[in-house]
Amino acid sequence: MSSKGSVVLAYSGGLDTSCILVWLKEQGYDVIAYLANIGQKEDFEEARKKALKLGAKKVFIEDVSKEFVEEFIWPAIQSSALYEDRYLLGTSLARPCIARKQVEIAQREGAKYVSHGATGKGNDQVRFELTCYSLAPQIKVIAPWRMPEFYNRFQGRNDLMEYAKQHGIPIPVTPKNPWSMDENLMHISYEAGILENPKNQAPPGLYTKTQDPAKAPNSPDILEIEFKKGIYETPAGTILYHAHLDIEAFTMDREVRKIKQGLGLKFAELVYTGFWHSPECEFVRHCIAKSQERVEGKVQVSVFKGQVYILGRESPLSLYNEELVSMNVQGDYEPVDATGFININSLRLKEYHRLQSKVTAK
Amino acid sequence: MSSKGSVVLAYSGGLDTSCILVWLKEQGYDVIAYLANIGQKEDFEEARKKALKLGAKKVFIEDVSKEFVEEFIWPAIQSSALYEDRYLLGTSLARPCIARKQVEIAQREGAKYVSHGATGKGNDQVRFELTCYSLAPQIKVIAPWRMPEFYNRFQGRNDLMEYAKQHGIPIPVTPKNPWSMDENLMHISYEAGILENPKNQAPPGLYTKTQDPAKAPNSPDILEIEFKKGIYETPAGTILYHAHLDIEAFTMDREVRKIKQGLGLKFAELVYTGFWHSPECEFVRHCIAKSQERVEGKVQVSVFKGQVYILGRESPLSLYNEELVSMNVQGDYEPVDATGFININSLRLKEYHRLQSKVTAK
Amino acid sequence: MSSKGSVVLAYSGGLDTSCILVWLKEQGYDVIAYLANIGQKEDFEEARKKALKLGAKKVFIEDVSKEFVEEFIWPAIQSSALYEDRYLLGTSLARPCIARKQVEIAQREGAKYVSHGATGKGNDQVRFELTCYSLAPQIKVIAPWRMPEFYNRFQGRNDLMEYAKQHGIPIPVTPKNPWSMDENLMHISYEAGILENPKNQAPPGLYTKTQDPAKAPNSPDILEIEFKKGIYETPAGTILYHAHLDIEAFTMDREVRKIKQGLGLKFAELVYTGFWHSPECEFVRHCIAKSQERVEGKVQVSVFKGQVYILGRESPLSLYNEELVSMNVQGDYEPVDATGFININSLRLKEYHRLQSKVTAK
Amino acid sequence: MSSKGSVVLAYSGGLDTSCILVWLKEQGYDVIAYLANIGQKEDFEEARKKALKLGAKKVFIEDVSKEFVEEFIWPAIQSSALYEDRYLLGTSLARPCIARKQVEIAQREGAKYVSHGATGKGNDQVRFELTCYSLAPQIKVIAPWRMPEFYNRFQGRNDLMEYAKQHGIPIPVTPKNPWSMDENLMHISYEAGILENPKNQAPPGLYTKTQDPAKAPNSPDILEIEFKKGIYETPAGTILYHAHLDIEAFTMDREVRKIKQGLGLKFAELVYTGFWHSPECEFVRHCIAKSQERVEGKVQVSVFKGQVYILGRESPLSLYNEELVSMNVQGDYEPVDATGFININSLRLKEYHRLQSKVTAK
Repeated sequence: MSSKGSVVLAYSGGLDTSCILVWLKEQGYDVIAYLANIGQKEDFEEARKKALKLGAKKVFIEDVSKEFVEEFIWPAIQSSALYEDRYLLGTSLARPCIARKQVEIAQREGAKYVSHGATGKGNDQVRFELTCYSLAPQIKVIAPWRMPEFYNRFQGRNDLMEYAKQHGIPIPVTPKNPWSMDENLMHISYEAGILENPKNQAPPGLYTKTQDPAKAPNSPDILEIEFKKGIYETPAGTILYHAHLDIEAFTMDREVRKIKQGLGLKFAELVYTGFWHSPECEFVRHCIAKSQERVEGKVQVSVFKGQVYILGRESPLSLYNEELVSMNVQGDYEPVDATGFININSLRLKEYHRLQSKVTAK
Repeated sequence: MSSKGSVVLAYSGGLDTSCILVWLKEQGYDVIAYLANIGQKEDFEEARKKALKLGAKKVFIEDVSKEFVEEFIWPAIQSSALYEDRYLLGTSLARPCIARKQVEIAQREGAKYVSHGATGKGNDQVRFELTCYSLAPQIKVIAPWRMPEFYNRFQGRNDLMEYAKQHGIPIPVTPKNPWSMDENLMHISYEAGILENPKNQAPPGLYTKTQDPAKAPNSPDILEIEFKKGIYETPAGTILYHAHLDIEAFTMDREVRKIKQGLGLKFAELVYTGFWHSPECEFVRHCIAKSQERVEGKVQVSVFKGQVYILGRESPLSLYNEELVSMNVQGDYEPVDATGFININSLRLKEYHRLQSKVTAK
Repeated sequence: MSSKGSVVLAYSGGLDTSCILVWLKEQGYDVIAYLANIGQKEDFEEARKKALKLGAKKVFIEDVSKEFVEEFIWPAIQSSALYEDRYLLGTSLARPCIARKQVEIAQREGAKYVSHGATGKGNDQVRFELTCYSLAPQIKVIAPWRMPEFYNRFQGRNDLMEYAKQHGIPIPVTPKNPWSMDENLMHISYEAGILENPKNQAPPGLYTKTQDPAKAPNSPDILEIEFKKGIYETPAGTILYHAHLDIEAFTMDREVRKIKQGLGLKFAELVYTGFWHSPECEFVRHCIAKSQERVEGKVQVSVFKGQVYILGRESPLSLYNEELVSMNVQGDYEPVDATGFININSLRLKEYHRLQSKVTAK
Repeated sequence: MSSKGSVVLAYSGGLDTSCILVWLKEQGYDVIAYLANIGQKEDFEEARKKALKLGAKKVFIEDVSKEFVEEFIWPAIQSSALYEDRYLLGTSLARPCIARKQVEIAQREGAKYVSHGATGKGNDQVRFELTCYSLAPQIKVIAPWRMPEFYNRFQGRNDLMEYAKQHGIPIPVTPKNPWSMDENLMHISYEAGILENPKNQAPPGLYTKTQDPAKAPNSPDILEIEFKKGIYETPAGTILYHAHLDIEAFTMDREVRKIKQGLGLKFAELVYTGFWHSPECEFVRHCIAKSQERVEGKVQVSVFKGQVYILGRESPLSLYNEELVSMNVQGDYEPVDATGFININSLRLKEYHRLQSKVTAK
């Protein structure tokens, strides 16, 4: 059978994408396996051997950690973007970084297809594929979990196990955790089963990257983080988030910051929904980066029981004029000015009060 | 000397406002002392006696805790408003509540003047006075720390002490802390001296309302908080903030929430800068309250070492259709729909890519 | 052949939906024809006869003009929403109104299906179907122009004509205009052919609802429009838009208006993209309506050569205190207050200047 | 009497600033008169002679038209900023441009003071002075109309006339119009007297820069405007505004445009309230300029009876893929994709409907 052409598969080394690798071959494709090193714990050489053994024509293990930190994590930290006002955007950030390299490989290798193991639900497939189409409009995406010929055949884990046995795919000896993990150098997330019921607490043993605070050391760690033109050594995302927030508030004009906050909300939405590689996200990133030009300085933080405490900060570009403050020099500012400021601002409020009385009187 | 009329003074019982009380009398005013009980630790009866002894015509000790919780804290919690993306708006919330009652007293007692001890710097004077002018446009505010005849006479703490001695004002026996505190049932803040240098850490002994996490108990406290039409018993602001955020994300449509987030940013700005009693803040509060109509449910939280962990939540109005999720019913949603969704969304991105190539080619 | 059940078809009386009517019958459906009177010029009784003759089981001609004006046009006018900063949202507003009535008919008649003649491109299909799914999640939409069995059979106008001849569908005697029109009581729009080339001007004879300004009367028309609790007699959308803008600026606090402007942008986006019936659009409409509570008054306008000129306005709730203005009473406002206002506002700017010098000096 | 130093006065040649010139001399200042040529009709040489005759040490007539167009009007046009959704920002734009040059002259001439004739009401004084303080924090502004020694002496026009007579200031022979004008190359505005009553129409004879539409020529003028990297020949602001809007919508991604719209609202607010020279306005201008990088092309407009009609446009960077459109090539877009797009978008709406039923059922 003549080949349908080459497909670059985002390969994890696990059961699912191993089955997909073999299945793609079965469908007549030449499979190029691609595994991104984005800071997760993984035996990359083991994965390479496995892919080759399963019939991959080529295997690319690509270390994208540096670009992940510099081009993805860093703008996210600068945006102070949180999902739902509380979560860092770990998984959402990794997808466009991983998929971008995958598209590069496809273009370099002359492959017309890319493939991934994301399910047909949720945003991961969207993040993955919008990246591909943005960067290479002609590319074709093969998403097996959305193809009836695949998902009808593999209706549960047992079908995958059976298929694995038949095709010499190594089956994990340890029973699978009831959750799946998504890990990168910034973050780890868990999904599925027991965790889907919002009433349930996290089961013991879930955490691998962080510690249960109750078991964490009883003395704090002290760090100093320096922000200067975007170059930094990367501690965990949460620490970086808080330290950056602190130095930003210390060096950025408050009115600029308000506008930047609105842009940060938009950024978080775009990243979460898969639009990292879009004209609007590019525009927002540019604007946020502009706002950061003078965000420089050092922050001292204490990390204790999984929480981050800011101890102090200093910056050559601080907006707090220490000299004036400490010498109690008043400069051009007279107390009577505050009276004028208040009076002028109250004019509108007084007029509104007059109007309210009219409305009530009617 | 005939009286210039009555002035309602926001009296704290401390050295500064005691001096102001006597000074106002000296200027020819009848002084009505007003002390708001907003949840702070205070010997209110002691303060009453002191005010009367210093010559106040009347003293009003008003418990505004209930309205503070229901009308001020609660809308702030619902807005998820933070100052600088991290601080709850404790002090900013208390001022308009305290000043509103003060204006009521002035109107009831026929006083044409109100007075306060806020300095001529910072937002507190603004929050105080804009409230007064909004609610009673004809009222006159006497702000001694902005009047040359006052601040030239009292140029430092020693001048106040000297004046106190001359006028029988009791002088605090314990040396004053190098910081001043602003406390209410939701929060406490510290200001001044050593704390103004951003390089400095908080000195030991500063915290009165919270504990140094390192000394906090080694086992967590578990709480359950119920949200239902705004009625709630009030735990500390931070716990409430996190619990509300959780139940909100669980019950509010995500697109409504995005719009509400923008309104929350505006709300925080307005409250911080003193515009609680303004048409725009009234409007924003109304809109945010509208967004909360279906935010109902119970949240279990664990409080450990000063941090809040969400354990679980449940709500009759959850947007997560548990039935569908648990039974794995797909409903009307077919995997091919996701393909269509992605394709339609990618059209614009592909077109943009085409255009970029054109620009690059030029 | 037993019926597949009833389908309510949005019927226009034209060639396309006449063919769809017959085709749906052919597929085994009982067809209920529905024609909305939304202010367009149409011989409704002629359309009724035609539908019955083609085999419709029932025909409903529903006058939705009143609800279109009160529930759709009016909130849009209040929002000051424009698409791309210049177009009123005519077509986008009509769709959810028309589809809502269609769903009502389906529910009343026990029909499980609704159908429409919108093409597979553009937003009209989205506006139509999101309305249906929002209001009746169980309903099935039959969109022939997206079904291969339909669009493969009818690949052009000739195929429709041929089919019409075969099935006794009356064929329009006059040659079709090279453009199609969408008309309602507020607006009319044109689409297709020559108009798609952005270089082309509108051909003579295009305008039916408005006149070429060069041929319009040489003397202006003067109107007076009264705004009061949403009740109004409906002139054309453009006049209403300008008159409302004028009375709004005259009666609404400027800071409320700024917040409302942001909500108006969101509203325009939601309406244009088909999300009228969504929680977020409902929320935004509620907020905008709240902002309008005091927008009352009369506006005099002159309409000349297709343009609207505001002549004057009056309102019992004007924010311009005429008494103060005309008597030149200064109230509590002293010139020195402006100095204070400017000084306080300049503090931040001066500090920024100091910082800039530092940055430049580096 | 020794001089208090030099003051640069923004001089118009009219009665008010002529009196101010003499009065400043009287107060002991050396007066440098400065008159900006910003496109208004003015006999500049006549003004120069007058200033010298009245005792100005130096006179500077500065042509700032070019920088006004390039650095002020152009960013405003790009922002599509309107005040109150309808007015171009003419006066607000001119002030920071005029004041910036004045500060330059003061610095060059070693003058510690600047002065202007703006009244103590309204935004003009704010626009003027915030510019001065932003660009030269050490400068002192002398605002006679806010100084009691000035406004108590000149309580009306008669006092000015009297003073003029005494000091040899030429008095205008024609009676003053009951309105004052602010003119620049982009716009003209009128203020005062009869115009302050919102019920009144503009009196005949008011318009000098535009014509009453009823008297305008009966045939349209056709223009072609080219947008390319900001270089353009300047027609009137309104024409430019509409032409730019058109080419922007034609070439800018719609999601970028939505974000830019929000920034445009902020820009309009900042300019109107006097914050052109502020970190936040600088930031917003930068972001808006970034959004314009690909806004290029030609627009044909017809100007008729004072209104602007867009006839057509073309651009090498159009987002409308004419090739695809005209050849009716469908590309990667299948009708079934629209179904998927609609289905995915309806999931949330259906879930919301389910929830609403629950709420209603309670």
